[in-house]
Amino acid sequence: MNDNKNYVKEITNIEDDFAKWYTDIVIKAGLADYTDVKGFMAIKPYGFAIWENIQKYTDEKFKKAGVKNLYLPLLIPEDLLNKEKEHVQGFAPEVAWVTHGGDQKLEKRFCIRPTSETMFSTLYSKWVESWRDLPMVFNQWCSVIRWEKETKPFLRTREFLWQEGHTVHETAQEAKDLTLKMLEVYKDLIEKKLAIPVLQGEKSIGEKFAGAENTYTVETLMHDGRALQAGTSHYFGQNFSKPFGIKFRNRDEKDEYAYQTSWGISTRLIGAVIMAHGDNRGLKLPPEIAPIQAVIIPISLSDKMVMEEAQKLFDTLSKKFRIEIDQRDNYTPGYKFNDWEMKGVPIRIEIGPKDIIAGQCVMVERDTGDKIAIKLSEAPLKLKEILNNIQKRMFEDCKKNMIDRTCSVSSLDEFIEKINKKQGYIKAMWCGDEKCEEEIKNKTGARSRCLPFKQEKISDKCVVCGRPAKHLVFWGRQY
Amino acid sequence: MNDNKNYVKEITNIEDDFAKWYTDIVIKAGLADYTDVKGFMAIKPYGFAIWENIQKYTDEKFKKAGVKNLYLPLLIPEDLLNKEKEHVQGFAPEVAWVTHGGDQKLEKRFCIRPTSETMFSTLYSKWVESWRDLPMVFNQWCSVIRWEKETKPFLRTREFLWQEGHTVHETAQEAKDLTLKMLEVYKDLIEKKLAIPVLQGEKSIGEKFAGAENTYTVETLMHDGRALQAGTSHYFGQNFSKPFGIKFRNRDEKDEYAYQTSWGISTRLIGAVIMAHGDNRGLKLPPEIAPIQAVIIPISLSDKMVMEEAQKLFDTLSKKFRIEIDQRDNYTPGYKFNDWEMKGVPIRIEIGPKDIIAGQCVMVERDTGDKIAIKLSEAPLKLKEILNNIQKRMFEDCKKNMIDRTCSVSSLDEFIEKINKKQGYIKAMWCGDEKCEEEIKNKTGARSRCLPFKQEKISDKCVVCGRPAKHLVFWGRQY
Repeated sequence: MNDNKNYVKEITNIEDDFAKWYTDIVIKAGLADYTDVKGFMAIKPYGFAIWENIQKYTDEKFKKAGVKNLYLPLLIPEDLLNKEKEHVQGFAPEVAWVTHGGDQKLEKRFCIRPTSETMFSTLYSKWVESWRDLPMVFNQWCSVIRWEKETKPFLRTREFLWQEGHTVHETAQEAKDLTLKMLEVYKDLIEKKLAIPVLQGEKSIGEKFAGAENTYTVETLMHDGRALQAGTSHYFGQNFSKPFGIKFRNRDEKDEYAYQTSWGISTRLIGAVIMAHGDNRGLKLPPEIAPIQAVIIPISLSDKMVMEEAQKLFDTLSKKFRIEIDQRDNYTPGYKFNDWEMKGVPIRIEIGPKDIIAGQCVMVERDTGDKIAIKLSEAPLKLKEILNNIQKRMFEDCKKNMIDRTCSVSSLDEFIEKINKKQGYIKAMWCGDEKCEEEIKNKTGARSRCLPFKQEKISDKCVVCGRPAKHLVFWGRQY
Repeated sequence: MNDNKNYVKEITNIEDDFAKWYTDIVIKAGLADYTDVKGFMAIKPYGFAIWENIQKYTDEKFKKAGVKNLYLPLLIPEDLLNKEKEHVQGFAPEVAWVTHGGDQKLEKRFCIRPTSETMFSTLYSKWVESWRDLPMVFNQWCSVIRWEKETKPFLRTREFLWQEGHTVHETAQEAKDLTLKMLEVYKDLIEKKLAIPVLQGEKSIGEKFAGAENTYTVETLMHDGRALQAGTSHYFGQNFSKPFGIKFRNRDEKDEYAYQTSWGISTRLIGAVIMAHGDNRGLKLPPEIAPIQAVIIPISLSDKMVMEEAQKLFDTLSKKFRIEIDQRDNYTPGYKFNDWEMKGVPIRIEIGPKDIIAGQCVMVERDTGDKIAIKLSEAPLKLKEILNNIQKRMFEDCKKNMIDRTCSVSSLDEFIEKINKKQGYIKAMWCGDEKCEEEIKNKTGARSRCLPFKQEKISDKCVVCGRPAKHLVFWGRQY
């Protein structure tokens, strides 16, 4: 029999060392594990089930929006990668190169896709002929490789899973609209399913995607006040269609270069869920994406009546919810409580001999710790209600943290003082000059998160140089 | 306006050149395309949607059987691949090697997974401690790379998509049972969804998977009488658990090496669907996995009444079926008929001015060409019925071809004569000696497909050497 206290001790205190707390959760909650390949993780079934729930929701939304899935090669020839100048500069330093097939040295080397703009564009140049073929709104769910120097499970790994949508359009406007439509899908996913409020806006030139005209982003704030870019959507204009020759015969019977977009979210969202919601008892999962929404723990495994009622309850609830029943005979109930709290299951349902007599079970909320006695006959209805409440409360709690950690500043000194006092979003006016952006980065460790769509005017002057300000910018230290 | 006749001419005649007919279908029906990376294909949305339907069905079956999905690294260190002797000999000659990350030459090289027994086994050696942890029944949907010399879209490509299930068990019996259970899932998928009858059996030693104790297979026969291995399930015994150190504390508190399995199906099944069902009008898709089950073609796009009724019909039918409506104004109805036949859509629904007056539409079956007038009010009910009939008929037609192309032989001469006359399955008795198997391969071009589970005794003697026969074997030339 294990000791509860020792078990909880295994997680680092969240206030002592947030980074260590994070990796403890990843490993102890069984989300992922390290492997023999440095910087590559194994996503374990419990972590992967979260990804499957994210995929399912997003893929349905995509399909309703007319997106079609396909699959393109894992390998990209070196000369293709080199075609768009900014793009190759952005990615070439961090790709993995394949040089041999079997015993043979290859004539030209291939990189493993770090992203597939070049492969999509090459194929689109074959597939697009007339305006009648447009738009093409395609997406793939796949893995990509970027040879990062420092890695951390889910947040920054040499391999990660993602979806990459790539589209071609007849007009710039249609492409831009699509870019924002997809950003809206991401916002819905992250707010409604992951219970994390997002900030929507445009990236500064210094922070935009290599090769994009505009990059739009959904930004999130973690428990410790660090920012995390949760999804991006890029408008390319004709930046790829020109070097790759994606021309179409337009309605005036003239050749025109097409307008493109790309957009993606990745398994890093699982990292966001951990860091936005977790606490000292472990992971805390929003019911909407929790692989297990409630776990039934029969108290006293030797009591036949208890086991029968627990099984009945499981049979009833598992028709509508994702339910687990813990019948392990080598752990105490106390150990099990801690174990499932650590794994972030939203509700634990206790059922013991006294409950049977009272015709009830006890639902314990992971987020508040509150215990609610529920009549067995009302369990399905009440479970739904409590799950909904938890989902809402988690979003509100997370939003409260974001608001608490957001402040406006009007000087660089104030910026430094405030971000050091309480890490979070700093709102400050900016002239638009990359030098000022660079100075903020160097002096504060914060980068521009975005120029939010909802612009405010908190002062007339750039927080760095004092020249007339062009934009309100949210700044933050990032993951 | 395009010319119907020219359009159909674009496909090679199936009797003239089956191989060319096949690649014509792949390209012209829009299933896949060639890419700049030799041997790698782009699976286009129409082809990928078939894969998604296969995935959906199989994944649900897996989950009901207790399978959990996860995701393991794309790259495998060279020393891991080398740990199981037969396995490395089987795969090392055809893997792609990654030697550089960014600008840096890597200290040790990695291969891109050709299959993941070695990666799973390494992790299982960490994850498995006690019999209480078992079984572990995990699966991943991913892409793999094998540097094949000759390639053909879907059938043999350097990259393909698949699922690979890998399991660990407490007893040999449990592992063997799991192997056969998964083979049953494959049989159901292929027979009920892909409408192709399968032959189930065990592979001979010469044909089994590198590292397996036993390989079980589901074999299919294509339209031209060539055989195609559609899925395999392997029992490993302790072949991997010993070199990889997957030990567990058993119920007697002793350490024991675990028992393992692996099993997979791939995008090659799409090739099977093409070759089992297609004809001179193009692809023919079984309704159960067709991305589009019926296409509505309004005759006379300028007739307002027709367009309104067609739209209404689309709205009604698309609630329950996968429906498309073809409103392209730059093609004739005749061209459209050919186009959708080529794409293998099971039913085309014509609706024109005369139909409106009669309150009907006309459903045309892709497989028989039969036209059936249906009252508009009965369309949903009738569509379901007709789709079911097509699904059944396609299976029966395919089964008939298999039976027609299966014969028993009692001598090698008879073997050669019969397989040259009518390609298909040859049933012949075998002594079990690999030399005799080799001789058949050399003299007939046929390989042993499997030792079918349903054994018969068609003679006492091996068809090659005349010594006492041990097994009935199905032989065939393969894809």
